[in-house]
Amino acid sequence: MKKLNGVIRAQQFSTKTVEEIFSITEWMENSPPADLLKGKVMVTLFYEPSTRTRLSFESAMNRLGGRVIGTENAKDFSSKAKGESLEDMVRVASDYGHIIVLRYHKKGGAKRAQNFSRIPIINAGDGVGQHPTQALLDLYTIKKRFGKIKGLKIAMVGDLANGRTVRSLCYFLAKHFPGNKIFFVSPKKTRMKNDIKRYLDRYGVKWTETDNLAQVLPEVDVIYQTRVQKERFKDKQSVYKQVERESRELIINKESLILMKESAIIMHPLPRITEISYDVDDDKRAVYFEQARNGIFVRMALLKMILVGY
Amino acid sequence: MKKLNGVIRAQQFSTKTVEEIFSITEWMENSPPADLLKGKVMVTLFYEPSTRTRLSFESAMNRLGGRVIGTENAKDFSSKAKGESLEDMVRVASDYGHIIVLRYHKKGGAKRAQNFSRIPIINAGDGVGQHPTQALLDLYTIKKRFGKIKGLKIAMVGDLANGRTVRSLCYFLAKHFPGNKIFFVSPKKTRMKNDIKRYLDRYGVKWTETDNLAQVLPEVDVIYQTRVQKERFKDKQSVYKQVERESRELIINKESLILMKESAIIMHPLPRITEISYDVDDDKRAVYFEQARNGIFVRMALLKMILVGY
Amino acid sequence: MKKLNGVIRAQQFSTKTVEEIFSITEWMENSPPADLLKGKVMVTLFYEPSTRTRLSFESAMNRLGGRVIGTENAKDFSSKAKGESLEDMVRVASDYGHIIVLRYHKKGGAKRAQNFSRIPIINAGDGVGQHPTQALLDLYTIKKRFGKIKGLKIAMVGDLANGRTVRSLCYFLAKHFPGNKIFFVSPKKTRMKNDIKRYLDRYGVKWTETDNLAQVLPEVDVIYQTRVQKERFKDKQSVYKQVERESRELIINKESLILMKESAIIMHPLPRITEISYDVDDDKRAVYFEQARNGIFVRMALLKMILVGY
Repeated sequence: MKKLNGVIRAQQFSTKTVEEIFSITEWMENSPPADLLKGKVMVTLFYEPSTRTRLSFESAMNRLGGRVIGTENAKDFSSKAKGESLEDMVRVASDYGHIIVLRYHKKGGAKRAQNFSRIPIINAGDGVGQHPTQALLDLYTIKKRFGKIKGLKIAMVGDLANGRTVRSLCYFLAKHFPGNKIFFVSPKKTRMKNDIKRYLDRYGVKWTETDNLAQVLPEVDVIYQTRVQKERFKDKQSVYKQVERESRELIINKESLILMKESAIIMHPLPRITEISYDVDDDKRAVYFEQARNGIFVRMALLKMILVGY
Repeated sequence: MKKLNGVIRAQQFSTKTVEEIFSITEWMENSPPADLLKGKVMVTLFYEPSTRTRLSFESAMNRLGGRVIGTENAKDFSSKAKGESLEDMVRVASDYGHIIVLRYHKKGGAKRAQNFSRIPIINAGDGVGQHPTQALLDLYTIKKRFGKIKGLKIAMVGDLANGRTVRSLCYFLAKHFPGNKIFFVSPKKTRMKNDIKRYLDRYGVKWTETDNLAQVLPEVDVIYQTRVQKERFKDKQSVYKQVERESRELIINKESLILMKESAIIMHPLPRITEISYDVDDDKRAVYFEQARNGIFVRMALLKMILVGY
Repeated sequence: MKKLNGVIRAQQFSTKTVEEIFSITEWMENSPPADLLKGKVMVTLFYEPSTRTRLSFESAMNRLGGRVIGTENAKDFSSKAKGESLEDMVRVASDYGHIIVLRYHKKGGAKRAQNFSRIPIINAGDGVGQHPTQALLDLYTIKKRFGKIKGLKIAMVGDLANGRTVRSLCYFLAKHFPGNKIFFVSPKKTRMKNDIKRYLDRYGVKWTETDNLAQVLPEVDVIYQTRVQKERFKDKQSVYKQVERESRELIINKESLILMKESAIIMHPLPRITEISYDVDDDKRAVYFEQARNGIFVRMALLKMILVGY
């Protein structure tokens, strides 16, 4: 039996490991072992609040019989007041439990943490960096719906420059799931960054870029919608206004449903603001709440693979 | 065995159910079954902080062997920053556990949540709306002291317009406990609202209204004191000043004790600010801390009735 | 079997009890009994956030099978908004569990709490008052390294006026560990206060005072470094500037290591800001992270001695 030694970035996995994650996720979804993590303690270290992600991890840990301690806003609480470094905090926290789930407000936080921790780290989002467990749950959702992740046309829509979920998703698609085509649909100022495009090119993934959603909708199998990451535009209010204005053209609503294939699915990492209208929620193609639920099973699988082995 | 399908508002219960709640509460007080809720997860979703109420529910859940995950300030944390709706949050949270305990800052929150949740909701206070578990613990406290809730004279004192506990209490008294008389004692600007008065009238409950506490004290069996809900007066500072001034006449102190019956009890939903002086605490008629303790047993009973059945 | 009835201040213990704490701490470090506190609930009541201390206690409780409920910022959350007293909060919280761990922002908080609580209180820091469990873990660390706490030269460095850890440490050294010598090294405005100097004199402990760290370093066995308690200087910005400037002379860095004995140890209660350079961390004399780890074992021992007995 081997152990996963943490989850830091999308690129770390072999294709075989990704397959194993999915097969353990299925097991967790269907017959979770209640006392598997008895005696284990998870430390949720969130430097910025993310109620959804934190509770998803904490639910996963509790369902497997483990215990949770943590903080939901470390940046505003003790750390800011006292000026302690992430490195010191992690070094101490790594004595408090058996695994750390870290949300950090700056890119590279998870990697820095791993260098100083004596226990495994799961990256639960690091600024504009990555959010690898989100990408895994996204892919698990696609796999459940289509049986396989191949030959699909996948549109990523919205604030692609600041959305870390779409970035992580691209890494996974390039490395492990050849034979799909990606459509980047975004306001001009928030296009997918070049590093990702290069990465896709290197792996021979076909991609195209547009700001015309209506043209893309009839063609694609997956619409992955994202929100404008308002909190990333703090010092750029005029850019934000423009992005917001152009984003209005990218909303998924009742009219979009008419254009879409019957077999397509609409995904969203949540939270959703206005970029998908509420009247789309009851359409059978709207899978974003199922997607969030899958997150719990994926995280249960990862906790098992890290703390117990596989 | 049947299950309670959530606790949203005071009016939802039949008199028989209220009696069953009290009899299970007694059981919980005397011999709580330690592992009854093993494997169950409670999600405490608090949009505004209420340390006391949250910890009371979390203590109840833990005493029965269940697990707790949650957030104590969702409005200030992720939701405000990202603008997510209550409906979306609840839909996702309903995958995280087996029951949601919701505190919301606006009236109607619990009802809205119930419409979107796939698991039961307990309303732990929704703005100026209701706080039904508080009313249940209030009534349980009265019943323990007087043996029955009948033929009693009950004074509700303080900010009756904004206090949701007195509102919920009136609903219960009207529907399930006939034969009591209510005295509303309040500053002029914070009188009990008309909807409640109508409700009492409909059920034939006798009530009277005054701002003279001294006149009422010698007569009543229960004094239910409440604090001025300062946080509800944000844009009405001059009204607040007047209410605060008149409230000084409604303080329960050593002198009030002299006027009161020997058999009377003084209740308060807490937190208490200045409306009951500290030197009253040691009088045997002061039951507000016992009342808070009863809250744990009532909540244990409700959790059992919802998650296991009765 | 007797029980410890809480931990309020350093002076409360007999020398025999301190020895018993250390021997149970050793047991907790080497073979912790996993279900010892099953069914027990700890309430962590933190009026100001201290992620490290809170998580240390919560980790200790969880490792022994107990449960935790709590709040990490009571002052900013419900209490501030509603103006409730510490006494009322504690009275209610003492129904929620079997032990309260209290961090309070003002001196004397733990003592006040104990007067109103029906369950034991552990003082997790009260303003500029005390932090007795910190002192215990400090001493346990010294004992582990030197075998005994006798005949040692101990330098306490930094903001000695506002640092409660050095105060608690002095109390313990004076009362229980005779035969050591203390060197106070600090900026002029933050010298150790007179009450502690008197206390040391009363017990015949030798101490001296200086602002020259380099002179002291070659001589001492223990360097106990502390940070400037910035949050205690809110209304004294010019004093703060001066203290900060003089503190730069008290930094432990690579050069300090050359001056120090090979057998010496560098301690710090953490969080560390700039008063120990990062390049010191890998030196074998740097024990501050081990010290933090020892805190978990000390707290496990105290929880056992209070909740189960010894």
